[in-house]
Amino acid sequence: MTDSNQDRHDWHELAQQLRVDSVRSSSLAGSGHPTSSLSAAELMAVLIAKHLRYDVSSPHAANNDHLIFSKGHASPLYYAILLAIGAIGEEEFETYRRLGSRLEGHPTPVLPWVDVATGSLGQGLPIGVGVAMAGKKLDRLPYRVWVLCGDSELAEGSIWEAAAQASYDKLDNLMAILDVNRLGQTGPTRYEWDLDIYAQRFKAFGWQTIEIDGHDVAEVDAAYSKAAATEGRPTAIIAKTVKGKGVSAVENKNGAHGKPVPDEAAAIEELGGRRNIRLKPQLPDGKATAHAFRGGGALALPTYEKGSQVATRKAYGDALLALGKADPRIVVLDGEVGNSTYTETFAKEIPERFFQMYIAEQQMLSSAVGMHVRGWKPFAATFAAFLTRAYDFARMAAVSRANICLCGSHAGVSIGEDGPSQMGLEDLAMMRAIFGSTVVYPCDANQTARLLALLADQPGVTYMRTTRQATPVIYGADEDFELGGSRVLRSSADDALAIVTAGVTVPEALAAAATLAQDGIAARVIDLYSIKPLDLATLSAAANDIGHVLTVEDHWPEGGIGEAVFSALSTAGTGVKGELLAVRHMPGSATPEQELAEAGIDRTAIVAGAKRLIGG
Amino acid sequence: MTDSNQDRHDWHELAQQLRVDSVRSSSLAGSGHPTSSLSAAELMAVLIAKHLRYDVSSPHAANNDHLIFSKGHASPLYYAILLAIGAIGEEEFETYRRLGSRLEGHPTPVLPWVDVATGSLGQGLPIGVGVAMAGKKLDRLPYRVWVLCGDSELAEGSIWEAAAQASYDKLDNLMAILDVNRLGQTGPTRYEWDLDIYAQRFKAFGWQTIEIDGHDVAEVDAAYSKAAATEGRPTAIIAKTVKGKGVSAVENKNGAHGKPVPDEAAAIEELGGRRNIRLKPQLPDGKATAHAFRGGGALALPTYEKGSQVATRKAYGDALLALGKADPRIVVLDGEVGNSTYTETFAKEIPERFFQMYIAEQQMLSSAVGMHVRGWKPFAATFAAFLTRAYDFARMAAVSRANICLCGSHAGVSIGEDGPSQMGLEDLAMMRAIFGSTVVYPCDANQTARLLALLADQPGVTYMRTTRQATPVIYGADEDFELGGSRVLRSSADDALAIVTAGVTVPEALAAAATLAQDGIAARVIDLYSIKPLDLATLSAAANDIGHVLTVEDHWPEGGIGEAVFSALSTAGTGVKGELLAVRHMPGSATPEQELAEAGIDRTAIVAGAKRLIGG
Repeated sequence: MTDSNQDRHDWHELAQQLRVDSVRSSSLAGSGHPTSSLSAAELMAVLIAKHLRYDVSSPHAANNDHLIFSKGHASPLYYAILLAIGAIGEEEFETYRRLGSRLEGHPTPVLPWVDVATGSLGQGLPIGVGVAMAGKKLDRLPYRVWVLCGDSELAEGSIWEAAAQASYDKLDNLMAILDVNRLGQTGPTRYEWDLDIYAQRFKAFGWQTIEIDGHDVAEVDAAYSKAAATEGRPTAIIAKTVKGKGVSAVENKNGAHGKPVPDEAAAIEELGGRRNIRLKPQLPDGKATAHAFRGGGALALPTYEKGSQVATRKAYGDALLALGKADPRIVVLDGEVGNSTYTETFAKEIPERFFQMYIAEQQMLSSAVGMHVRGWKPFAATFAAFLTRAYDFARMAAVSRANICLCGSHAGVSIGEDGPSQMGLEDLAMMRAIFGSTVVYPCDANQTARLLALLADQPGVTYMRTTRQATPVIYGADEDFELGGSRVLRSSADDALAIVTAGVTVPEALAAAATLAQDGIAARVIDLYSIKPLDLATLSAAANDIGHVLTVEDHWPEGGIGEAVFSALSTAGTGVKGELLAVRHMPGSATPEQELAEAGIDRTAIVAGAKRLIGG
Repeated sequence: MTDSNQDRHDWHELAQQLRVDSVRSSSLAGSGHPTSSLSAAELMAVLIAKHLRYDVSSPHAANNDHLIFSKGHASPLYYAILLAIGAIGEEEFETYRRLGSRLEGHPTPVLPWVDVATGSLGQGLPIGVGVAMAGKKLDRLPYRVWVLCGDSELAEGSIWEAAAQASYDKLDNLMAILDVNRLGQTGPTRYEWDLDIYAQRFKAFGWQTIEIDGHDVAEVDAAYSKAAATEGRPTAIIAKTVKGKGVSAVENKNGAHGKPVPDEAAAIEELGGRRNIRLKPQLPDGKATAHAFRGGGALALPTYEKGSQVATRKAYGDALLALGKADPRIVVLDGEVGNSTYTETFAKEIPERFFQMYIAEQQMLSSAVGMHVRGWKPFAATFAAFLTRAYDFARMAAVSRANICLCGSHAGVSIGEDGPSQMGLEDLAMMRAIFGSTVVYPCDANQTARLLALLADQPGVTYMRTTRQATPVIYGADEDFELGGSRVLRSSADDALAIVTAGVTVPEALAAAATLAQDGIAARVIDLYSIKPLDLATLSAAANDIGHVLTVEDHWPEGGIGEAVFSALSTAGTGVKGELLAVRHMPGSATPEQELAEAGIDRTAIVAGAKRLIGG
């Protein structure tokens, strides 16, 4: 390449190299998506040769541009780029899709140049929006975010949540490159090569749009220049491309998705043979530093008086503000329910680090992941029920090795009258089944504050479950808790059973234990506030001492506290006789007290369950 | 009302009655969303008085129009309508939000006039699209689908999946009524009263749009007439309205969301007092009958030769076709991966009952639920991993009491090279935690076919997990299975442990048992193909006989087979010593065999785990 990286002939050669290398790696692996890579070769060649500002040797440099492959299945093309820019060598390049390789079937951040894992379509652009929001509103740096999208994934609603967010936030640092190659996995896309339809939609969503021939390097170059020079709105470059471009055996042919080309040697020959172009993208301004917000200092968590009545969601809001004051890298996002989740407490005092995401939970999580990419510490909250809307994004956040803290409020039937659509009754199952997650479920305000402070320093996807109703403060403000811990609230030498619960049913368990005591039945009560990891030592001790364990949870029976406890005990070698109280009917509307009673998880039900258990 | 229901003065009076009644019910309940109801009173008054074609006495009549409150929190308005049209009486009306009442905080189908549960925003319109698809392509009846949407929910991506689907399918029987009242839960919406923004977006998505003053009954009437007369595309009526309209204490005021008006009596007086208007919507053409597809007859399931190698996903496709031939009410939907899930087998032979939903999983589930509303039997499939995208829709399908059959293919690490983004590793946790769900996980082709036939007749949300790789056919084609069943594949009087597993790890367990036998260790092998419900009798027998249980699953440890088994045994009173083998690291790319080995769930790992268990 020339020094300037700006020669059109060289761009074409580079594009052909990216094609050849895409064919090579997928043929060697025996799987992968070369045809989806071939369509975007010019789009990427021109980008890395001229427009991308990126220090390959310092992938986390503050002012680097970001390149996100929303169409993660085009990983052959992505890895061909890494080879061309010298991020990886030929030896590693040839490990594509093999055991132990960093070059996975879809890119993940095990490679330091990859910001986030993609491969679940419709996620790269929303996360790119999050990175661009960080650039504009947090880092306040001029880096750009380039997102390569497929045309098939434009059917995902998350794309349009992202499109709305991007124009609303005037993200002129965001460029979506739409590789409209007409063919999806099984056949033509809905709109094939009707670029105008995409253009109309992005325009209506407030974007600048530029329609080009995606194989004409001059058009690609001009489009990028125009996009980069545009202020006040994001740009969608809508590129007409040909899937499998350059390899006649697969070019624009249905049925060639997701498999190596039929004849590698013929394809490489047709593409003009192997090349060995190596180039570096231009460097970003190395001196620019990210904005830092004022503040910081010692953490002063809120405290609550023992015996008072405070909802854990309220304490979450108070603690979040305290954490935000102590750590200026903390940012908060909410799905337009901040007066329910109490993120409004933070928003009122620290508006510059609060992001109103409106009712777009997928974008809320994506923005959180995008801000994590730039080292911010995102806390995102909505109703526990509505986090189900973004489960794929939480799942992928774990693959992205993202550190984000989620809060689901209004968990369980105890919300009362609003009814089942608003009751998070599967959130523990859902969040426990996120790789590497931490899940806590506090029962009182002081515990909420302490646990949230611990989550702030915990890597991975963390989750706090809060509840709507005010509950009694049972812990002093000076009590310590730990992730993986629990608290024995009541015990004696002659305990006949252990009651294990957390959250809103802890007061119910204590009341039940008091009633049972009157009947001469001693019950140990364990507050299992850390649902994942579990305090196996305390549980095992109870199991060994007593042998009867009753669990109670305001959650469906599947995947929650009871299953976690009984399987942990069994695999620790301590089989017990158990009773699992959970919500086993479809709730309707009623008061919180009635709901707990109807679900069979209130104090009366616990007493009855305990007698059943030890009598049985 | 006049007989014609067409007098504008009467419409105004009816609107005021709907307002008064919305105020009354929410005040009586002490909660609810009257202000979100007041804004849409004229929109609904004109609809029920003139345009809706609906037989109140026969809510499931084939040719009834459908009215879906996508903004389900406006339930006071909905129940005021039911009162006005004589569906319910005053006594029941006053039970709003009380224990045992059919008038829940958000509407659910416990009321026969309610098609689907709403309350999770952004779901009513997508489901309405599904009903409209049924009207056009299945029932072939002229009924219309009217969906009342809030403006806040237009931020949800699912709305735009629906918008794309509706225009693509030319659903001129679909009318979205957008109640743009400017205020969300916590403050102004993103676009407040900028109706043009919404209009531009719906237009770009291929809709007719009509902007009106939503409180001017003549404009509302004209818009409905125009929408009803329009062919070839859906219509969005974009109505500028005032939240809290008619009650000055709350009119257009922030902070009045989701709570009763401050002074009920004053509000009713301001609205002109209680009225007692009763009216019936016009009747639909009662003689019209739904289209029935030809076909039907005895079910001829596919059969596979014992010892051959067939992927369960392939057998799913074959069985689906057989079911579709036998039952002409079966319809199939896929998220543009039909050559992976094998729904293409059905699509090729029965294209008129196959729906290509492109990569829009939320709309896929919504369309399935919408088709269920009209009595069709929907089967929807995509990768297990991508069903996470639609978890909120599966959750709400259960609240809707919908009967839909989901299939997640490519489950687990055994998919191999594509990597973690494509591996469904939380699907069992997710689908088990759906109220009333049934979850099966077949290990071979004959079992797959038999189980799918059982799911076809099972109410609720059902789920079949299939896998990518070919696996050995171990069952004869004549073997019977049952939901809630299991199969003991190997046992002896001196079993030292039971190995419980399902799906792709069944052959691994059998191989491990053979190896263990060589070492003098007898292992019972249980194929737990029905994950929910569980075969507790067989499990308990094994637990009581043996006391050592090892579970294996190609799934995260949380919420899957192991937790289900160990908690069921504990609560059945049979504590065991257990070993839970599951995927405990973040996988990368590798061959299927390597993946199973790396995850510690292959035959070698099972042998080691078994020895650990019985030695420990």
